Amino acid sequence: MDAITVVGLIAAVFTTASLFPQVLKVWRTKSTKDISMGMFAFFCSGVFLWFVYGLLVNDLPIMVANSLAFIQALVILIFKAKYK
Amino acid sequence: MDAITVVGLIAAVFTTASLFPQVLKVWRTKSTKDISMGMFAFFCSGVFLWFVYGLLVNDLPIMVANSLAFIQALVILIFKAKYK
Repeated sequence: MDAITVVGLIAAVFTTASLFPQVLKVWRTKSTKDISMGMFAFFCSGVFLWFVYGLLVNDLPIMVANSLAFIQALVILIFKAKYK
Repeated sequence: MDAITVVGLIAAVFTTASLFPQVLKVWRTKSTKDISMGMFAFFCSGVFLWFVYGLLVNDLPIMVANSLAFIQALVILIFKAKYK
């Protein structure tokens, strides 16, 4: 694996893992007042489309990273809808 | 431009644009209690690395999308640091 691929993989791990602290926070606090529903609605749609793109180009890392991001963003969106 | 590229571009527009409603929200309310600093710290680092990856593979859409995402995520992170 070359150095450029390693940079891309680290980038993918960071952006995908970044959602987890926010999932934990809304889960613990049940408070979502300051979170933008627009952000997570667009973000969910976007990472879902990235997942479809990964399917179409048959790229496993894109599929894995974006399905994990989708699940986490959807959890945040559901909390936002439930606890305004 | 083929259909697969169009899906990828729409995905990129969605995930990049998704940050804007959150930027507007923190700008207007100056309230960031429910936002995870961990999320935006990791996310900033991740999209910065995606930008570096775009530079290394000389991919303009990756550079543009991630520099726009970086700027917006950094604004949210600065608001989070300033208004706890």
